[in-house]
Amino acid sequence: MSRNILLTLKFDGTAYHGWQLQSNAVSVQQRVNEAVNAVLHENINASGCSRTDTGVHAQMFCCNFHTEKSIPAEKLIPAVNYYLPDDIAVYKALEVAPEFHARFSCKSKEYVYRICNTPYRDPFYEHRALFYPPMLNEALLNEEIQAFVGYHDFTSFCSSGGSVEDKRRTVYAASAQRSGDLVDIRIHGDGFLYNMVRIIVGTLLYVHMGKIARGTIPDIIKAKDRTAAGITAPPQGLYLNRIYYDGVNLLE
Amino acid sequence: MSRNILLTLKFDGTAYHGWQLQSNAVSVQQRVNEAVNAVLHENINASGCSRTDTGVHAQMFCCNFHTEKSIPAEKLIPAVNYYLPDDIAVYKALEVAPEFHARFSCKSKEYVYRICNTPYRDPFYEHRALFYPPMLNEALLNEEIQAFVGYHDFTSFCSSGGSVEDKRRTVYAASAQRSGDLVDIRIHGDGFLYNMVRIIVGTLLYVHMGKIARGTIPDIIKAKDRTAAGITAPPQGLYLNRIYYDGVNLLE
Repeated sequence: MSRNILLTLKFDGTAYHGWQLQSNAVSVQQRVNEAVNAVLHENINASGCSRTDTGVHAQMFCCNFHTEKSIPAEKLIPAVNYYLPDDIAVYKALEVAPEFHARFSCKSKEYVYRICNTPYRDPFYEHRALFYPPMLNEALLNEEIQAFVGYHDFTSFCSSGGSVEDKRRTVYAASAQRSGDLVDIRIHGDGFLYNMVRIIVGTLLYVHMGKIARGTIPDIIKAKDRTAAGITAPPQGLYLNRIYYDGVNLLE
Repeated sequence: MSRNILLTLKFDGTAYHGWQLQSNAVSVQQRVNEAVNAVLHENINASGCSRTDTGVHAQMFCCNFHTEKSIPAEKLIPAVNYYLPDDIAVYKALEVAPEFHARFSCKSKEYVYRICNTPYRDPFYEHRALFYPPMLNEALLNEEIQAFVGYHDFTSFCSSGGSVEDKRRTVYAASAQRSGDLVDIRIHGDGFLYNMVRIIVGTLLYVHMGKIARGTIPDIIKAKDRTAAGITAPPQGLYLNRIYYDGVNLLE
């Protein structure tokens, strides 16, 4: 009987054209498929919890696949890691219900956008954070970001190219917090549109610069117009941080 | 009149054969010399505060050079960074007294050895920490490491190949502390022998494994015999973290 396996991964996305298989570029999905198939001698194709853009990272990314093989899920972890490159690792494997799907079963996600707020670039955050030299007032960012919390039409915060028609989403929580030189912008929601987090961050930075007036994010949301919002922040600061499913504990 | 310039750097040492110029491999010193000379149109050769091994990192590394040019020290920072590769950055530049020498003027140094203590490797610490899966008891490490504090002959903790005859050094402070999955071993001393920190860490791990008995580090020190100590821990966990000079404030 076919078994449904959920893998939880971390990856540094610098070298990849996102999760999704591409015909002419290397993706994380390709590397995961290759590693799992090297272990199982099958021809699985893992389904991911989301697409990610080129250069975007994951502290938690989930995918699932169906296999005929009987290897215990936890034994897959070291075996698959052996075949994965250094910038991708599996750290959890679970057998899940047949109908479970990494994307469609997902209840909510948390993203973190990391800013390295130092006067000069820091080699240890190269490709892993947005380097932003002007001193950030994280309290201002934290105040402004609260405007996104709730159920809204996020059309103003969606790049063209997305195929989704209903652009209403719920943001459960959002914050900006400093830890030393790092400012982490955190957003937890039931779903995210194409480039939504990166446009939210770009808009917050525009508010910080004074290019967008303080307190006007509710108006930008109401405008339902991408050009009302700020720029799309670059990918290297973005991390998929948590994935939530009902009845599946990914943290213990 | 010639001016003496002190640069403070950070570097990710993964791609380099240490600080020191090599005829057949790329070193950090070579990249720094090239960048400074591209800015100043001179032929300087920066003196470093220490050699570092291949793959060792620096959160703070100091070097100095003499120049005939009058460019203000702080203007050198963005100019030199422009020519440096992504994995090396200058973040401080100061004009110092003519007799100042990055190595000989150094009063003390602090190293941090970082261990990523997770069951499976973490892509974000690849090349930047020792991956060590068995659960570490950092309290035990912290207790054992206290034996190194003080003025000792560290012959047992020095690899052959060093040219130094007097192997007595003072360790001012040492600790092992956990922050989540990371265990940082920190040692501050007036000077360090070849591979000294890495052999101290390897010895602590041997004590943790039970290959060396608890409480016997004082005996290993007294033995003045490299074979009495543990292995040399690998380079990727080691960071030069702080450099201290009299009368030069590198942190403000």
